[in-house]
Amino acid sequence: MLSFQNDYSSTAAPQILTRMQQIQQEQHPGYGTDDYCRIAADKITKLCDDPEAQVWFLVGGTQTNQTVISAITPQYGGVVCADSGHINTHEAGAIEATGHKVLALANEDGKISAAQLDDYCERFYADANHDHMVFPGAVYVSQPTEYGTVYTLEELEALSQVAHDRKLPLFIDGARLGYALTSDGNDADLDDIARVANVFTIGGTKVGAMFGEAVVFTRGNTPTNFTTLVKQHGALLAKGWLLGLQFDTLFTDDLYFKLSEHANKEADKIRQALTDKGYDVAFVSQTNQIFIIVSDKKAAELAKHVTLGFMEAVGADRVMLRICTSWATTDEQTAELISYL
Amino acid sequence: MLSFQNDYSSTAAPQILTRMQQIQQEQHPGYGTDDYCRIAADKITKLCDDPEAQVWFLVGGTQTNQTVISAITPQYGGVVCADSGHINTHEAGAIEATGHKVLALANEDGKISAAQLDDYCERFYADANHDHMVFPGAVYVSQPTEYGTVYTLEELEALSQVAHDRKLPLFIDGARLGYALTSDGNDADLDDIARVANVFTIGGTKVGAMFGEAVVFTRGNTPTNFTTLVKQHGALLAKGWLLGLQFDTLFTDDLYFKLSEHANKEADKIRQALTDKGYDVAFVSQTNQIFIIVSDKKAAELAKHVTLGFMEAVGADRVMLRICTSWATTDEQTAELISYL
Amino acid sequence: MLSFQNDYSSTAAPQILTRMQQIQQEQHPGYGTDDYCRIAADKITKLCDDPEAQVWFLVGGTQTNQTVISAITPQYGGVVCADSGHINTHEAGAIEATGHKVLALANEDGKISAAQLDDYCERFYADANHDHMVFPGAVYVSQPTEYGTVYTLEELEALSQVAHDRKLPLFIDGARLGYALTSDGNDADLDDIARVANVFTIGGTKVGAMFGEAVVFTRGNTPTNFTTLVKQHGALLAKGWLLGLQFDTLFTDDLYFKLSEHANKEADKIRQALTDKGYDVAFVSQTNQIFIIVSDKKAAELAKHVTLGFMEAVGADRVMLRICTSWATTDEQTAELISYL
Amino acid sequence: MLSFQNDYSSTAAPQILTRMQQIQQEQHPGYGTDDYCRIAADKITKLCDDPEAQVWFLVGGTQTNQTVISAITPQYGGVVCADSGHINTHEAGAIEATGHKVLALANEDGKISAAQLDDYCERFYADANHDHMVFPGAVYVSQPTEYGTVYTLEELEALSQVAHDRKLPLFIDGARLGYALTSDGNDADLDDIARVANVFTIGGTKVGAMFGEAVVFTRGNTPTNFTTLVKQHGALLAKGWLLGLQFDTLFTDDLYFKLSEHANKEADKIRQALTDKGYDVAFVSQTNQIFIIVSDKKAAELAKHVTLGFMEAVGADRVMLRICTSWATTDEQTAELISYL
Repeated sequence: MLSFQNDYSSTAAPQILTRMQQIQQEQHPGYGTDDYCRIAADKITKLCDDPEAQVWFLVGGTQTNQTVISAITPQYGGVVCADSGHINTHEAGAIEATGHKVLALANEDGKISAAQLDDYCERFYADANHDHMVFPGAVYVSQPTEYGTVYTLEELEALSQVAHDRKLPLFIDGARLGYALTSDGNDADLDDIARVANVFTIGGTKVGAMFGEAVVFTRGNTPTNFTTLVKQHGALLAKGWLLGLQFDTLFTDDLYFKLSEHANKEADKIRQALTDKGYDVAFVSQTNQIFIIVSDKKAAELAKHVTLGFMEAVGADRVMLRICTSWATTDEQTAELISYL
Repeated sequence: MLSFQNDYSSTAAPQILTRMQQIQQEQHPGYGTDDYCRIAADKITKLCDDPEAQVWFLVGGTQTNQTVISAITPQYGGVVCADSGHINTHEAGAIEATGHKVLALANEDGKISAAQLDDYCERFYADANHDHMVFPGAVYVSQPTEYGTVYTLEELEALSQVAHDRKLPLFIDGARLGYALTSDGNDADLDDIARVANVFTIGGTKVGAMFGEAVVFTRGNTPTNFTTLVKQHGALLAKGWLLGLQFDTLFTDDLYFKLSEHANKEADKIRQALTDKGYDVAFVSQTNQIFIIVSDKKAAELAKHVTLGFMEAVGADRVMLRICTSWATTDEQTAELISYL
Repeated sequence: MLSFQNDYSSTAAPQILTRMQQIQQEQHPGYGTDDYCRIAADKITKLCDDPEAQVWFLVGGTQTNQTVISAITPQYGGVVCADSGHINTHEAGAIEATGHKVLALANEDGKISAAQLDDYCERFYADANHDHMVFPGAVYVSQPTEYGTVYTLEELEALSQVAHDRKLPLFIDGARLGYALTSDGNDADLDDIARVANVFTIGGTKVGAMFGEAVVFTRGNTPTNFTTLVKQHGALLAKGWLLGLQFDTLFTDDLYFKLSEHANKEADKIRQALTDKGYDVAFVSQTNQIFIIVSDKKAAELAKHVTLGFMEAVGADRVMLRICTSWATTDEQTAELISYL
Repeated sequence: MLSFQNDYSSTAAPQILTRMQQIQQEQHPGYGTDDYCRIAADKITKLCDDPEAQVWFLVGGTQTNQTVISAITPQYGGVVCADSGHINTHEAGAIEATGHKVLALANEDGKISAAQLDDYCERFYADANHDHMVFPGAVYVSQPTEYGTVYTLEELEALSQVAHDRKLPLFIDGARLGYALTSDGNDADLDDIARVANVFTIGGTKVGAMFGEAVVFTRGNTPTNFTTLVKQHGALLAKGWLLGLQFDTLFTDDLYFKLSEHANKEADKIRQALTDKGYDVAFVSQTNQIFIIVSDKKAAELAKHVTLGFMEAVGADRVMLRICTSWATTDEQTAELISYL
């Protein structure tokens, strides 16, 4: 059956699988000390225009968020994020398991604002009892957000400024970063992301890789002995070159951007169709995730033809569904989906 | 200056200090293995009408909440509580430090309801992704609540029923339990508390003791090797008889209840005066804590004569203040406070 | 240059890479809910002759040890293991990071014995202060051990019996299990392992897979909500079918056993050569790891031709080196190595 | 029955109990913000001759060790200590519960040496795999040691120098510090302790107080937001003035030193008697703990008259016992004990 359920249901872009075959006879040192990792890291730091940036390659998103956040958040602090943030909702308490509270702020379209962050900090320090409370210790935002929306450069710079003023490291979770970078109207490029963040990730799992998240610590922000922290969190892949090779491939001939852009274009067609047909769309998204609100009856009809992501009930008889394209979505699949709408 | 700031600003009830003097020449085995602890525990289990109950004596509230909650909450679970719950607000992340998320529900007058808990669980298990989320793993309520309100027996029984049906241990934080037990209209006695809870505490620190919280595990609910868990959390007092002696004293001649009732009576006078003078009272409390909302100007005036607890700004020019009586509050102090209102 | 440094420096067995190519057009549900995982798990439970066994597929060894041990060890307990155990030496404190002490016993040739374990428990419970100590909470052994030695079935059964009597779950780390199962003289087959252990792993990373460790909980020993614990530790691979496919392949036509046996045979040739040439071999190993003690001078000579694992200095002028074959080692490589010995 | 079992079986020095009575009518702000804490801290920093020192008052030893060590040890590090160190043996895994491995070195008479520490670090950094291991992250020594022995100033300075060179904070656990400071031949005074340590404690519980450990961070070494860390570990006493008052009393008229010296003098008499009678004494101790090795028969005889601490079996038919004097030991008690020897 047709599926627009998520962007991680296909194995990998053909270019990646081809290279996996080609390296069969090679032998490599383990744990990310190989040449592919070095080459991929160099490509990324160049794109970031940050010679001091340091790159690690981890396997999955939750382990990456857990490892990075526990490394940058002081023991007395929690991590501020949108209440819709992945770390607050769908990571099984991975952050709390490292001892840190998630300090959730009410999201607007999946985002938090600089003013909101500043106000939160202001009220925190104004509270006479704040020594008995969890300090804001780091800031986490997702680009794009869990609702497919994209922070503008201005929004990110404002968040970065407040975080900097409050001495909080800013961590941008880019599990789907490619989809933001190539979205219509996006004005925050990779070097902007590197400039505003203390650390950010470039997600591979959802953008063409078999697995893999590149962690980029910018401008000398790398925590001491970070490799050991990665190992301690069980996130250090023995055959690290499998990660290096994939990111090297993704950042060869702009593959990462092409794959992302393709998914966005497919989503654009769906967005147009939804508009034409008068659908109720939940968030104004330019990326590969579209959230629609339909009647239970309509949802049941769609379910006969296509698998979508079920989000939640909306009132008594409506539901929110997610339509998710990916780098692997074909024009034919999109056309078929539109025919069911 | 006059102070109604809190209920833990005086050392201890005279009966306790007297007995401390009397035992000067005695020698006791350590870590709660002494006779005073045994005697005090016996008195408590009798009052609870639960021969299977087991009692531990710890020093302070945060360590008690941390030790108990981490002992009863499974690794995959968090602890459900009111967003106003002490563990969610003013314990510096002590629960998260043990790896568990605090799952905060919107409070009403400091309480959560059985229906609210059941609905939360219902929606949790209905979510197709709940394996990626933090399971409800235990339930925490405070009696009285942080806003001085008191759960009725019916409310507690309903919460207990839902918790039982959902296989969640119910923990009642009784840091100020005496003030609830002796409040006007209270219908949940100590044996009721023991019957509805899997574990609860009887707070000494805020009810006449120098320090000390009695932890009561009911009906064989004691976690395996709980003494070791207490030790692991740094909560096992070397000279444990200091705790046993205090609780023995508090449960001799109903001292615990008399001290609590006294504070409530003093608060009743203040409540009457507030009503007479048309004050804006924030919560309908029968216990020793009263929350009032006054203009900034009025707050400044009061501050010249009496120290109250500052809670938070309310809108642009009003604040919420806490008036807190204690077992040590004298009639004269109450009269003086009323004269300033 | 020739390398016998470790058994995880080649990408994967050709059969695995071929199948990765073949599934390019497929779409699968995530997180191990796909058909490949189901099929692979079925094959494993059949080989274990344990219909109640439950299988999870994780990515790497440290994350597996961390997730399993924290799931089976009570909060008041630590995990007993050989002081040479991987969790005690080379996992960057991953176990302690979950709150548990590693209780290390002196190894003999990488092993601990049933008598040693029993004696440890006996003395622990005999200690009047044991409530203030870390309880033995689980038992960890590696098969084969970190020194390439293999527990006999009798040794494992005795360990299992003591563990059972002491109510301790027995966890067998099989990161290199295939090499033990196919070693000369081994008498503990996969179904024996399943019978003596509460939980064990079948390592893929070091036996032909790109990555992957199968976790087998035997006879209904699976911890409640284990999937959530896997997620919480960042160990749940989004594209879980990549794991299922690899283990399905490894357990098709006995590939897992053939790959392992091949490595052992190559090691046998090296062992024979070492004996012939009068080398000082540190442990009596039948598996793919051989530890030799040579002079610094000899080590320097060897280093010109072949990369070996450096273990440690032995006295003033000798060192211990590891020769490690793998499923990928060729007859030619072995012959070349022998020519340098 | 006569007891020389430990030094924490009497409530408190009379001076402390008297002052507890005297402050009955006082009201104080909570959590250590009161005047007694300020005054006691001033006295301590003066004795330390370190105007930058900052002092906190906590309740018990385990919570203090847990709070301090987790505050000063980086996430990638463990705490190096003697294998006989209290944190390694009798704190129920409190350190590991905060995520840190205890890196135990073989003790000699309860001590570790500077050379031993340096060698450990040297070998750690020389290990090619040290990124996969637990870094030495802090150093813990007890003064006096758990065996009653005392580090000389030279030994402490050497340890401090190595720790400094290795960039490791040195933590001196002074749970019985008074007994070391006043022991025969001691040459490390309080200001020396302050000079060599990054942080140390002055134990009250075992030296005349009801409870209480003063934590002294020297020369600006206080961790950021340490009060919040104390709270997070459940170690912040609500009625903090009870701690301040006790330490103020202990450091008035040299009470702390007089109490300690008294215990040492009583121990000296016992030591002399043991020598005279040809007892086998296990460690050369000048403080209030004496460890003797006697036959099972002798132990049984002694047990009829006096309670001693049982340490461990020594061979088939002998045991190690601890004789422990305290500030509360009377001349008569000592004489009676000697009569049984």
